[in-house]
Amino acid sequence: MEQKSSKSLQKLSELRREHKGLINLMPLQTGGILTDAARVALMEFGDGYSVCDFCEGSLCNVTNPPIRDFVQELLPPFLGCEVATITHGAREGKFMVMHSLAKPGDSIIVDGNKHYTTVVAAERVGLNVIGVPNSGHPEFRVDVNEYVPLIKKHAPKLILLTYPDGNYGNLLDARRLGEIAREYNIPYILNGAYAVGRMPISMEEIGADFIIGSGHKSMASAGPAGVLGMRKKWEETVLRKSGTYSKKDIELLGCSIRGVPLMTLMASFPYVKERVQHWDEQVSKAQWFSAELEKLGFIQLGEKPHRHDLLHFDAPALYEISKRVREKGYFLYKELKERGIWGPQPGLARSFKLSTFAADRQQLGFVIDSFKAILNKYS
Amino acid sequence: MEQKSSKSLQKLSELRREHKGLINLMPLQTGGILTDAARVALMEFGDGYSVCDFCEGSLCNVTNPPIRDFVQELLPPFLGCEVATITHGAREGKFMVMHSLAKPGDSIIVDGNKHYTTVVAAERVGLNVIGVPNSGHPEFRVDVNEYVPLIKKHAPKLILLTYPDGNYGNLLDARRLGEIAREYNIPYILNGAYAVGRMPISMEEIGADFIIGSGHKSMASAGPAGVLGMRKKWEETVLRKSGTYSKKDIELLGCSIRGVPLMTLMASFPYVKERVQHWDEQVSKAQWFSAELEKLGFIQLGEKPHRHDLLHFDAPALYEISKRVREKGYFLYKELKERGIWGPQPGLARSFKLSTFAADRQQLGFVIDSFKAILNKYS
Repeated sequence: MEQKSSKSLQKLSELRREHKGLINLMPLQTGGILTDAARVALMEFGDGYSVCDFCEGSLCNVTNPPIRDFVQELLPPFLGCEVATITHGAREGKFMVMHSLAKPGDSIIVDGNKHYTTVVAAERVGLNVIGVPNSGHPEFRVDVNEYVPLIKKHAPKLILLTYPDGNYGNLLDARRLGEIAREYNIPYILNGAYAVGRMPISMEEIGADFIIGSGHKSMASAGPAGVLGMRKKWEETVLRKSGTYSKKDIELLGCSIRGVPLMTLMASFPYVKERVQHWDEQVSKAQWFSAELEKLGFIQLGEKPHRHDLLHFDAPALYEISKRVREKGYFLYKELKERGIWGPQPGLARSFKLSTFAADRQQLGFVIDSFKAILNKYS
Repeated sequence: MEQKSSKSLQKLSELRREHKGLINLMPLQTGGILTDAARVALMEFGDGYSVCDFCEGSLCNVTNPPIRDFVQELLPPFLGCEVATITHGAREGKFMVMHSLAKPGDSIIVDGNKHYTTVVAAERVGLNVIGVPNSGHPEFRVDVNEYVPLIKKHAPKLILLTYPDGNYGNLLDARRLGEIAREYNIPYILNGAYAVGRMPISMEEIGADFIIGSGHKSMASAGPAGVLGMRKKWEETVLRKSGTYSKKDIELLGCSIRGVPLMTLMASFPYVKERVQHWDEQVSKAQWFSAELEKLGFIQLGEKPHRHDLLHFDAPALYEISKRVREKGYFLYKELKERGIWGPQPGLARSFKLSTFAADRQQLGFVIDSFKAILNKYS
């Protein structure tokens, strides 16, 4: 035990990331790669609590570094909302809203493709989660009109849509759900963890009450970091202050990310604000890549034509290989890694997710050729 | 507005920390200065979600980087607890425990010197907070025996002690409170945000049920990062899993700090584990420094002899100066900064807090001389 501990301790002084420098297709990671400005910010504000040098009681009001300007001036127009704040990430944003608007035993209605953290956040509050089923293989679409009968039946305190979902990259009819939310007067959370920072998006245009973004997933930020936007009418509910300490937000426990991830989020923001303007190029790149992989016999799941860089493929040919090789499903991870490519979760070959967001067409061409070469090698 | 936004955006590409490289006496910061190993980890794992390369569903079980070993093997003996986990920070750890063990309307009893986040976390759960008063100026001691009548009167669900508190650096009789907790069978939270990572501390020896530490405050880590240790009997309550996703902790919303602050916490841990062994040197350094400042007419508040690097001084002579200079209380911040020293909160001169933890005796000698010079300059 003593010896094992000593070995474990030794390992901590040599923390290195195995996947550094590879072509990154990992859906969780392609939108969170730092800008150069963010890397400078990492070193500048790495020391614990260094963002708090000039704090006068509230993180979101710090003027040096310019957190207040970021939160009050830059985030709201970017999110299409009236009031914004900083969170530890999308899941913490969801929990804040659920915890503020609903009570144990209340119900919420969510899309069948929701992220698992939607359910866990609701469990933490004690809510009943009712899912609107998807259409199943291969498209996994959710018709948002199906929220209506469930709203009538369950009188939910909130409805939530994952836009897009993290499994198939489907962009459902968020605006139609906005109309439904208005018609039935139910607060509407748009979970945009894979949208905010990748594509243009506006809470107001969609007609949602809350918009949630993830810094580490889609805003070129270190983790943990997130943003939460809302209509002004919810400010007093969700950003209510402590009865004892009038500057302190209860749901943020005073402050949320009092550290360097916030600085990377801010440092990358000018770049992120610009990159969402080029979303059409991202979509056409994803569609081209998907079509090329389908030529190899892979089957793209989710909506077609696809409108997001997050792609999910069934790969029967790779699955056949995985059944007869020593490494089982890990052979794909290994083969790709040897070629300088990191993407599908290690162990998965039968079906896997990729994101084309961070790679350029030349790199993706190399990825396509690599898949071809792997199929040939084992055929 | 447009122009103002454009200026705000411009500022984000030039985020620089004004206090970098100064002698740091800021109590929030002296225990959170990164090690060189942590700075390497910052660059290695800065990209969003890069710690999750090999995740199989639970952050605390990731083996590469060796998060599991850190959480399961290294943290428990360091904290003197049976089970440990990772949090966003001390306040989030407190909220987790309160939210798991108490219900809205329940009461908890806390020391009068508690951190404000203790109250805000309790408010977020809906708890009544009953404080054990301190003895007032100048020592602000709390007699933990005074928890007893309040326990009898209010039947609290939890008791909490801040050890030391962040205002005076008082180390109360935590062990005696452990005996009281056992006698009345009340779960006991030790908030060690200024202890864990600075001084040797053991939850078991103190007889607490929970121990809470802060990475950015006292473990040479970037923020946000924290640790939570507990007795095994509480594991199923606080670290209960989702009913739907069996690997996911409800109170951590699946995972807590899925990002680079955790890597800095781990990278610095070998150094932190070693440095707590030299706590006696820290204490004698703090006592010497305090005695020197008292020779200048400052009055150290809190316990004497002091047993922690966190020092709070009344400074009537500086207050007199602040009343007649243009910069008011800011003159002290300005004078110290010109001499390469950063510590008292900008604007405070009448009384202020300092920490001697990060500075060596030579630097502290220079600080003492600087205070002398400032007093002379304005006398």
